[in-house]
Amino acid sequence: MSFANDTALHPDGAGRYVGAIVDGWDIGGNANGGYLLAMAGQAMAKAAGRPDPITLTAHYLAPGAAQPVHLDSTVIKSGKRLTTVSATLSSAERPLLTLLGAFGEVRSRGESSVDGEIERVEAAPPDLPDPADCIRVPGGDGFPPPLMNRIDLRLTEADAGFALGKPSGQLSVEGWFRLLDDEPNTTASLLLAVDAFPPTAFFGGLPVAWVPTVELTAHIRRQPAPGWLRCRFSTKFVAGGVLEEDGEIWDSTGHLVAQSRQLALVPRVAAD
Amino acid sequence: MSFANDTALHPDGAGRYVGAIVDGWDIGGNANGGYLLAMAGQAMAKAAGRPDPITLTAHYLAPGAAQPVHLDSTVIKSGKRLTTVSATLSSAERPLLTLLGAFGEVRSRGESSVDGEIERVEAAPPDLPDPADCIRVPGGDGFPPPLMNRIDLRLTEADAGFALGKPSGQLSVEGWFRLLDDEPNTTASLLLAVDAFPPTAFFGGLPVAWVPTVELTAHIRRQPAPGWLRCRFSTKFVAGGVLEEDGEIWDSTGHLVAQSRQLALVPRVAAD
Repeated sequence: MSFANDTALHPDGAGRYVGAIVDGWDIGGNANGGYLLAMAGQAMAKAAGRPDPITLTAHYLAPGAAQPVHLDSTVIKSGKRLTTVSATLSSAERPLLTLLGAFGEVRSRGESSVDGEIERVEAAPPDLPDPADCIRVPGGDGFPPPLMNRIDLRLTEADAGFALGKPSGQLSVEGWFRLLDDEPNTTASLLLAVDAFPPTAFFGGLPVAWVPTVELTAHIRRQPAPGWLRCRFSTKFVAGGVLEEDGEIWDSTGHLVAQSRQLALVPRVAAD
Repeated sequence: MSFANDTALHPDGAGRYVGAIVDGWDIGGNANGGYLLAMAGQAMAKAAGRPDPITLTAHYLAPGAAQPVHLDSTVIKSGKRLTTVSATLSSAERPLLTLLGAFGEVRSRGESSVDGEIERVEAAPPDLPDPADCIRVPGGDGFPPPLMNRIDLRLTEADAGFALGKPSGQLSVEGWFRLLDDEPNTTASLLLAVDAFPPTAFFGGLPVAWVPTVELTAHIRRQPAPGWLRCRFSTKFVAGGVLEEDGEIWDSTGHLVAQSRQLALVPRVAAD
């Protein structure tokens, strides 16, 4: 039982990748969106013959319970540096996610910049208390969701208040992420991390029980170094029935390893 | 000669949308990425039978000169609120763009929020001098690019310095955008606007002549009101050979009408 095992799809010899959504990575019975993204993204990388998702977009079409799934993929173009792949992850004949991504090879752990490469970073990783001084989001059977039993996600005391009905009021959250049992983070687990935190809507105190993802795009910048990931998610625009949620993930060496943006639906508040 | 005419593709009766990249919307002979996005996005909306792109992702596979093109599309799912479509825009048999989008209907011009809808905006439109006090980016035959003859794009004096070898030094730009001849902006022209400004790399003074787009995702939030659009583009992370560029577009009534993010390649600087 590991993230790597639980998200692996295998070639069926006839051009498909097959496997199953594993029980326990869910929120209320439906697999977490980042888990499904990681499952599809790894199979697409195999189809591309390249190790890492450089940019991967998923549209979420239907919720996925623990059940057999398969991925159909098409290599659209294979270039010098990137291979572009489209894919659909389905259960029986029902599409769950449809995706479009470019795969390549990101900078290795610890590798510094190469000759002639321009670097400029206009942001810093979240300044967080030590993980030991943060509060682990507990897993449960419904709320809190089972997903939180499979990952170690820690929030500051101020942010953790959301679970007790005392949201910070900010449409943002910062915290730590790691896999369990010292399983190392990979570019695939970054795809999980970008959708693993409770939604910013909960911290902002919006009167919504969920904000279903329409579309999520993740850019993977670098192999994460061993250790905890620092994460930040924020929302600026709740309007027109949708919101965006932007994510940044930094590794233990202070490098940005992933960026994400998702568009989610904001349910209307029922009239009294 | 208008944006609407120059980006229209027409059904060929056999399931394809056909037309041509029109000369003049280019940068050095290759059609602007936003122009191609708008062309493909409008045909995909027709295929979806829904008027507006809610979220549209394009991967740029090859540059497009003025030539006949066609779009092949597949409706992946048609739901209550959104229809998800994948498509490829090609010239002869060469794919130029491959896309994935969800289409629906955004809030109309001037329409205010509906009952029970949650609104919260944590940002303000760019505070710009009047368009008359800004500097129009001139069009040319090479540099400046022909594209700028087809749109009216105005920058502040500080930002306009980039063209004279005096970049602001900031990896960001703010300015005005409109179509020519009082052609009204639409959700389609927002797809042009999100990629119409010179790249942030130029304002930041990075030693690069171009930053080719790998992938661009646009979220369209609302029908733009008549008049100028206020635009802001910024970059935080130039690293690992790529950068992201985030865009916000606001209409004349102060509403956010579009958000965008693109991932672009940053060429290495040649060794001396």
